[in-house]
Amino acid sequence: MHEARRMTGRDGDAPLEPIEPSPVVILVRPQLAENIGAVARAMANGGLFHLRLVAPRDGWPQDRARRTASGAGRILDAATVFPDLASAVADLHRVFATCPRPRHIVKPVLTARGGAAELRAIGDRGLRAGLLFGPERAGLDNEDIARADSLIRYPLNPGFMSLNLAQAVMIMAYEWWMAREATPPRRLESHKTHVATKGELDNFLTHLIAECDESGFLRNEQKRPGMVRNIRHFLERGEATEQELRTFHGVVTELARGRHARKQGAA
Amino acid sequence: MHEARRMTGRDGDAPLEPIEPSPVVILVRPQLAENIGAVARAMANGGLFHLRLVAPRDGWPQDRARRTASGAGRILDAATVFPDLASAVADLHRVFATCPRPRHIVKPVLTARGGAAELRAIGDRGLRAGLLFGPERAGLDNEDIARADSLIRYPLNPGFMSLNLAQAVMIMAYEWWMAREATPPRRLESHKTHVATKGELDNFLTHLIAECDESGFLRNEQKRPGMVRNIRHFLERGEATEQELRTFHGVVTELARGRHARKQGAA
Repeated sequence: MHEARRMTGRDGDAPLEPIEPSPVVILVRPQLAENIGAVARAMANGGLFHLRLVAPRDGWPQDRARRTASGAGRILDAATVFPDLASAVADLHRVFATCPRPRHIVKPVLTARGGAAELRAIGDRGLRAGLLFGPERAGLDNEDIARADSLIRYPLNPGFMSLNLAQAVMIMAYEWWMAREATPPRRLESHKTHVATKGELDNFLTHLIAECDESGFLRNEQKRPGMVRNIRHFLERGEATEQELRTFHGVVTELARGRHARKQGAA
Repeated sequence: MHEARRMTGRDGDAPLEPIEPSPVVILVRPQLAENIGAVARAMANGGLFHLRLVAPRDGWPQDRARRTASGAGRILDAATVFPDLASAVADLHRVFATCPRPRHIVKPVLTARGGAAELRAIGDRGLRAGLLFGPERAGLDNEDIARADSLIRYPLNPGFMSLNLAQAVMIMAYEWWMAREATPPRRLESHKTHVATKGELDNFLTHLIAECDESGFLRNEQKRPGMVRNIRHFLERGEATEQELRTFHGVVTELARGRHARKQGAA
């Protein structure tokens, strides 16, 4: 089945533990054990832990599920099986049904992002929530959906709605994680070096322009100010680091030295 | 492999077409053909179309890819193969490298959401962008990453970073779609009926309270105002539809009729 994409050395054998409060993922009449395993892996990616299975077609447990879980076996070990949806939701306070097709049902419809925000708010109030996912082929039926407070429908390409079960769980798990994520959308990581100060950049520009003057590249006095400005524009834009500027100082020095050496040789 | 989860009758044979401008997904040295197919399916879900393969391990095309693509075969048919990353990005203006592990590289790091916003902005300027995904086991190497403008690192559970390749593509495709999505996070769909007006709700409450008075349920004059208010609180909260209120009118009428009949029988 899908090969593991190991992204750190930390996972696989790491003891997965529930991050509370987190909603229960309920797979209603799931058909393929491979999908149940892939669901567990997607849940782990998004920090979900509690898995319930309602009447899994091929019984439970299943070795094939473990193979696609790629290290999320703890979630499968802790999964519980129920004969019907009524018993699977009996201890929950709120139930959300993922439901890709519009139905003639009067129910609040949430996006995945809106659903994740409500799930967080419900958890913060100390209530337990469940997220229903239907069987691979048919999805949830109307009786299943009648037990839900709200529907969740993902905004996705309406021209191609065939969504794999584990992908459906991945999107909710991702949005659940994102609902509490504070990482800025864009940041520059400078590690051991630091982003160059405007003074450091100016030092380099002075060095570069001096060598350009020396070489005769800026000999056209009329064009010189505009050319210097263009060079500055590019350099100011690049968020150079102090380390990168040192490298470029070296480049300019070496290039100039070669030219000087040739000049001396020619003299 | 994973069974198709048919969510509408529209897909499968629907002619998938590129929704422009959309970025190019570039799989660098992908290993498993099943993953390439699953990637195509995830791309279709998020409205991406252009797929490039750099040195796929087992050659190309592959029947196994078609099986996991679940109707996204058009994306596989249109996919192009390149011997190296340099040629695969040569016609692109911007390149983003997905890179889950922190590296000692000085590069802007975007979240998936931040990256999607930048991809949209780049497309709006008429520029072509590429999104790099590394091989299943090792991810992109440092030479690959050196060709990128920026890195994209998903915020996900740091305790379980083993992310399937198609799941990684799904998250970017989903965020790409969401970056232009206007669906409100929560809405009530009322279909053919309508959300009840306060007047319709009041009519029902008057009917219900009259029958409760008749039955003696509200005979305690001191408690009566509070009990009526409690009943109103619950009913006002439920966003009842006009159709639902008609059903409840019927329920109250029938329950009361039964009681009246018993009273008449007893008289």
